[in-house]
Amino acid sequence: MIADDRPTLGIGMVGYAFMGRVHSQAWRSVGAFFDLPVRPVMAALGGRSKEATTAAARDLGWAAAETDWRDLIARDDVQVVDICTPGDSHAEIAIAALAAGKHVICEKPLANSVAEAEAMAAAARAAAGRGVHAMVAFNYRRVPAVALARRWVAEGRLGRLHHVRAQYLQDWIADPAFPLVWRLQRERAGSGALGDIGAHVIDTAQFITGELLEGVSALTETFVKERPLAGASAGLSATGATAPADGTADGAAGGTAGGAAGGTVDGAVATGAVDVDDAALFIGRFSGGALGSFEATRFATGRKNALRIEVNGSKGSLAFDFEAMNELWFHDHTLPAAEAGFRRVIVTEAEHPYAAAWWPPGHGLGYEHTFTHEIKDFVEAVAAGVAPAPSFADGLRVQRVLAAVEASAADGSRFTPVEES
Amino acid sequence: MIADDRPTLGIGMVGYAFMGRVHSQAWRSVGAFFDLPVRPVMAALGGRSKEATTAAARDLGWAAAETDWRDLIARDDVQVVDICTPGDSHAEIAIAALAAGKHVICEKPLANSVAEAEAMAAAARAAAGRGVHAMVAFNYRRVPAVALARRWVAEGRLGRLHHVRAQYLQDWIADPAFPLVWRLQRERAGSGALGDIGAHVIDTAQFITGELLEGVSALTETFVKERPLAGASAGLSATGATAPADGTADGAAGGTAGGAAGGTVDGAVATGAVDVDDAALFIGRFSGGALGSFEATRFATGRKNALRIEVNGSKGSLAFDFEAMNELWFHDHTLPAAEAGFRRVIVTEAEHPYAAAWWPPGHGLGYEHTFTHEIKDFVEAVAAGVAPAPSFADGLRVQRVLAAVEASAADGSRFTPVEES
Amino acid sequence: MIADDRPTLGIGMVGYAFMGRVHSQAWRSVGAFFDLPVRPVMAALGGRSKEATTAAARDLGWAAAETDWRDLIARDDVQVVDICTPGDSHAEIAIAALAAGKHVICEKPLANSVAEAEAMAAAARAAAGRGVHAMVAFNYRRVPAVALARRWVAEGRLGRLHHVRAQYLQDWIADPAFPLVWRLQRERAGSGALGDIGAHVIDTAQFITGELLEGVSALTETFVKERPLAGASAGLSATGATAPADGTADGAAGGTAGGAAGGTVDGAVATGAVDVDDAALFIGRFSGGALGSFEATRFATGRKNALRIEVNGSKGSLAFDFEAMNELWFHDHTLPAAEAGFRRVIVTEAEHPYAAAWWPPGHGLGYEHTFTHEIKDFVEAVAAGVAPAPSFADGLRVQRVLAAVEASAADGSRFTPVEES
Amino acid sequence: MIADDRPTLGIGMVGYAFMGRVHSQAWRSVGAFFDLPVRPVMAALGGRSKEATTAAARDLGWAAAETDWRDLIARDDVQVVDICTPGDSHAEIAIAALAAGKHVICEKPLANSVAEAEAMAAAARAAAGRGVHAMVAFNYRRVPAVALARRWVAEGRLGRLHHVRAQYLQDWIADPAFPLVWRLQRERAGSGALGDIGAHVIDTAQFITGELLEGVSALTETFVKERPLAGASAGLSATGATAPADGTADGAAGGTAGGAAGGTVDGAVATGAVDVDDAALFIGRFSGGALGSFEATRFATGRKNALRIEVNGSKGSLAFDFEAMNELWFHDHTLPAAEAGFRRVIVTEAEHPYAAAWWPPGHGLGYEHTFTHEIKDFVEAVAAGVAPAPSFADGLRVQRVLAAVEASAADGSRFTPVEES
Repeated sequence: MIADDRPTLGIGMVGYAFMGRVHSQAWRSVGAFFDLPVRPVMAALGGRSKEATTAAARDLGWAAAETDWRDLIARDDVQVVDICTPGDSHAEIAIAALAAGKHVICEKPLANSVAEAEAMAAAARAAAGRGVHAMVAFNYRRVPAVALARRWVAEGRLGRLHHVRAQYLQDWIADPAFPLVWRLQRERAGSGALGDIGAHVIDTAQFITGELLEGVSALTETFVKERPLAGASAGLSATGATAPADGTADGAAGGTAGGAAGGTVDGAVATGAVDVDDAALFIGRFSGGALGSFEATRFATGRKNALRIEVNGSKGSLAFDFEAMNELWFHDHTLPAAEAGFRRVIVTEAEHPYAAAWWPPGHGLGYEHTFTHEIKDFVEAVAAGVAPAPSFADGLRVQRVLAAVEASAADGSRFTPVEES
Repeated sequence: MIADDRPTLGIGMVGYAFMGRVHSQAWRSVGAFFDLPVRPVMAALGGRSKEATTAAARDLGWAAAETDWRDLIARDDVQVVDICTPGDSHAEIAIAALAAGKHVICEKPLANSVAEAEAMAAAARAAAGRGVHAMVAFNYRRVPAVALARRWVAEGRLGRLHHVRAQYLQDWIADPAFPLVWRLQRERAGSGALGDIGAHVIDTAQFITGELLEGVSALTETFVKERPLAGASAGLSATGATAPADGTADGAAGGTAGGAAGGTVDGAVATGAVDVDDAALFIGRFSGGALGSFEATRFATGRKNALRIEVNGSKGSLAFDFEAMNELWFHDHTLPAAEAGFRRVIVTEAEHPYAAAWWPPGHGLGYEHTFTHEIKDFVEAVAAGVAPAPSFADGLRVQRVLAAVEASAADGSRFTPVEES
Repeated sequence: MIADDRPTLGIGMVGYAFMGRVHSQAWRSVGAFFDLPVRPVMAALGGRSKEATTAAARDLGWAAAETDWRDLIARDDVQVVDICTPGDSHAEIAIAALAAGKHVICEKPLANSVAEAEAMAAAARAAAGRGVHAMVAFNYRRVPAVALARRWVAEGRLGRLHHVRAQYLQDWIADPAFPLVWRLQRERAGSGALGDIGAHVIDTAQFITGELLEGVSALTETFVKERPLAGASAGLSATGATAPADGTADGAAGGTAGGAAGGTVDGAVATGAVDVDDAALFIGRFSGGALGSFEATRFATGRKNALRIEVNGSKGSLAFDFEAMNELWFHDHTLPAAEAGFRRVIVTEAEHPYAAAWWPPGHGLGYEHTFTHEIKDFVEAVAAGVAPAPSFADGLRVQRVLAAVEASAADGSRFTPVEES
Repeated sequence: MIADDRPTLGIGMVGYAFMGRVHSQAWRSVGAFFDLPVRPVMAALGGRSKEATTAAARDLGWAAAETDWRDLIARDDVQVVDICTPGDSHAEIAIAALAAGKHVICEKPLANSVAEAEAMAAAARAAAGRGVHAMVAFNYRRVPAVALARRWVAEGRLGRLHHVRAQYLQDWIADPAFPLVWRLQRERAGSGALGDIGAHVIDTAQFITGELLEGVSALTETFVKERPLAGASAGLSATGATAPADGTADGAAGGTAGGAAGGTVDGAVATGAVDVDDAALFIGRFSGGALGSFEATRFATGRKNALRIEVNGSKGSLAFDFEAMNELWFHDHTLPAAEAGFRRVIVTEAEHPYAAAWWPPGHGLGYEHTFTHEIKDFVEAVAAGVAPAPSFADGLRVQRVLAAVEASAADGSRFTPVEES
């Protein structure tokens, strides 16, 4: 290897399924595109099975494998812990890592409950006092088009905001025969579409507008109340690559319809109850006075990963759909009506967020780049000793919105204020 | 004129602004494209001003002018009364016309209150027993793409319905300087965006799905609470052609931002309070189990007349946007995933609803054709002695949804059942 | 009827199939939307069959029927002759009408040959000296979006023009079993896709750019060289409504695949040779230096009536597709790259060409409105005593382009200058 | 590092600008997503400047740097030579590498002349006899949507092909002040838009259709004939990231408008002649009977990297635009007309080419992935001892099309057969 006189930053990652794979690609690539002040080193990967973790480490480019996350945290060559496990283990790992003086990136949703998220946010606050930083991985903020939307709203180009129309639409469990994977189990996932993808669109909406959701009125529904049990092997063997979810967690990314034949008991298909939401709808009010309409569902047939948001302000509007992630649609309402209209800005110009690092105009980026950008921002913040964003407090705020949605749905859709921190 | 041995059907229309102009075009055109069992005759037009009504009658092709709608109803050569006035006069005119044995077409919303709508529905029910028929003019049902959507849902091509995502977005009052026209006054208009355009999208959603909205949770907002008074002349002089509304009512269609300088008192601009909603959002449940998300607003900058609806079912999805009214997007979820996707069906094939009467494939229709279709269906029903649809009862049902939305919004967004008739 | 003190303008129309139907709708509607200086009167309709012509006149609103076009021209109550027949009769009728002192609107292409077109243009030139005017009916110039495109190019908003990319794509004869209707016969139609739809896109391109095509290099092809003969009845009985063509001519508009069972001789299907082009492609140079790429075909499966044109200039670009006729896409290249992009202008604002006469923003127009606009412009020009556009000379210019295309295709695609008049 | 018992495959790459950066990313990533039979090792990078090449090697992940490509070829740890230089050096390097028994990947266009390409193809043919393989890097074949298009055409889903409509539109030199970078110099680049991007779209069209272009009729144009000389530093210092080209060659990727202040002589801006085409248009015939229309330009303002292709066949049509690279539009003409239409297939399903290796449905890929796929296919072929595609013979065929285009343009657009090999 050619000498590199920058200091190194050792990374330890926990989990290697869908999220672990995409985080690995980001760690592997970030240094070739961004001129970082430190050199990230992919030091060690944590998992449960020795064999599987070692194989994953080899394939994904990690120098070592650990089968206990406590050992991973304890390694001297690890300064950053990247948590890619399901939500039920986030709090324990993150708090321990911060306590050990390791910076933390944690996948979203921050936790499976407000209480856990509060504990994590408190730990992060305490660690920050010691120069140890934490970030929650809402990667969609790092879509160049989303970052550009944020920039334009912040610059006042939309004027006073009136409407936010936000949806996250998928269709991977529309088939009632799709099995009861961990994402459909409250114990593991916390909630259903709400926490998995609703959390993303809530964060994205708050990020773009720079406003907070102050209260919500909600409906949730479980369309398919009973599903075949996932086969014994479905959990870990399902490859992240084909998991039809925007899942975040390693060790259990989704499972696939094809591979996930339900368990069979005496010839009958064994089924289990789905105890999370299939869809969540809510309307709400933002701190700046805008109205918001939100929807998260895994039953929108034909919509694969449609994180969509439209913002209407007095001076203009913006529209985005992740299915065409390199485009941001902008209506400039200050132009004469005869020449105004939504314009398709291809967000690949050198002046666009993150874009100068990549390819010439019109040569678009993909899903994984959002993680590369996230990690670039994280590394730069950590190296500079400043707090990366979004913080655990931001993650907690999203968690409180999720809780308000569930509370409203459980209380006749009554308008429910989001608890302040 | 060349002899025509069909019986005639004399039409009397009240109102000649935006809705009156488009209804006139429909009456004028329908016979050239559809082979009707009777020949509609544009007998007389009703308005308040002798001069203006006469001029309108001449320009729009009506044989006579009346300045009292009672006289219009009483004419022997009038068998159909077509009501194109604002909502506050619908009940009185419609009930009188039905009592006089005249068939009635009435613009939407049926009335400005549930009570009025109930009286109208009762009158229509009674009249039907005497062979006299009434229809409420939800013209968007007659967009070929919307009628096709209804057909496909009814045929079961979407399977079980899970989601309805419906919006009616306009932007014509986003400017706070836009004056206080009648559509922004509760006394005349009943409500704001909710009744004007929300009514349309509610009817469209119920029509396409064949399901009823059973309950709603709502938020409404008036973003601009005080507006310049419309100049003395703004009401009637504003030409319907430039009125930036989907308004329905004659004698006062909207007014324009440009022409509508506010009244001035001692040099200061006189203003008045806006007492209707600028926007209404609600979520709800359909009778068949689907969840619905609705939004009606006149503040969605860049959206001109975006009546949009997407329906997701277990076997497929449909999407429509009136701004591209000749297109229906269909996702067939029964196809292999590798070749499925939303397809753009250009609804101009001879097999499509209404389309065979017009032009070859790809030669699209416009807004006014929805009225031509509506009148064609009405004339055929009346000639056949059967009830046209949507009935006044259907209009009442929409009115009850509007009332539930307002009740929910006034009660902390609590889920509010739609009252059954 | 209510008194109207404007002078009348009597119209006599020849032909009542597809083009006759759409022209009738325009004559019927124009006065209700545009404030014309004269009142058009639909005086008489000309056709060959007494019975059919009378029925058409009744249905389409013409006051009388004539079975010889010479008689129609001779009528005292006819001041305008509107020619909606196939191209092989244009010259004779138009020249006679002009000689008789009648203004003429003639469907496109102006004629089936350059020689005929020259004779017509000469007759028009002579008539103009007597205050008698002629126009060729390139209706697509009157799409509001196309007229807006012309306006913006003329204003210099595109800067120096570099590229014109123009296509007219249909698919109605892709099926080899589609019969040999008159549009596929050189004797009647002059040419195939080239003259029928290629003529439109040539005129549209020259109109928008304000430049002339100076020379072309071309390929033409007849993919299906032999087709079933159209049944005896296919010619006249095929209704224009379902004819899948942008046909212009009456008495035989297209025929339909369904209705057009081929003639049968002794049990075998009788076939005939197709002696026109199925598709024509050419590249060329415009007078201002732009390069042009053109394509006209009836074999572009899935494209129904896609008259498309994109123009790229140094300061901006425009794109249009008739399948979304209410939209004009505009890229303003003078904006900073970071915020530029093609914007979708919905061409329904009061400031847009023709739009103020119709409905509020977002309430789109349809195919037939292009004819209403055309007739409005024609009537205004005739009433003002000025020459309407496009003139027969313009029609001749298009004819010369068509001739150059055919000449190039016949001569090894050699670059062939368009003959100057 | 964790042990990996697969054999290694040592890579030596020449050039490190735009193409070198993207190839590096592909070599770096391919093993983490595809289960390769060998382990690629990024052994050495070749460039001219010691310092710059070493820095690039460090940033891009190459283990060593060489300043003479002959030394790179000679290294024992190099089994593959990846050529990312401008076209004028391709022949010399490739032929030497093949002679040395090294497999070769060479960027496109294969060479700057037919003669060079012939020599390269001959060398590749000879090497293949010794088990040494060569591939030309037409990366757009490896867009999943393009590969899917090829699959569907090969399966006969489009029936008989009638039309190919292909464009490659960019706008990065529309500004006359953009300097005379190497891509605008015949000596370095061979030709202008034609060879740079026209080559891509020719290959893509032949790949998708499985047919060869047999002859063409062409026009080329240089709109801006004189440009400022690029500053002394413009060549190598311009970063590939911002080079607004689809360029392929290292050592000189494009230069940017901003950074490229023209050279100044005595206060005046020194200019030079542009001796390549700014745009090339041609029409042609495919071996299977389809007509083709092609356009390559860098003056299509607003189009950033619009490699577009539409194919119309008797049974269906396909449309693709690289600016929305994850979508393939498919019209199935065998469906009933009433439900047919172009459908947007998001090419991210596990069943789609290459897609299973990446992310769940709807999580799109970017530009660089096409190179990862290309290298994956190359490595698999080399490991299996079979010839990778496209071969140098395929590259030569494209070169012959380019030559025919230039010959036709120089000979009055005469139809010019493409020479057979």
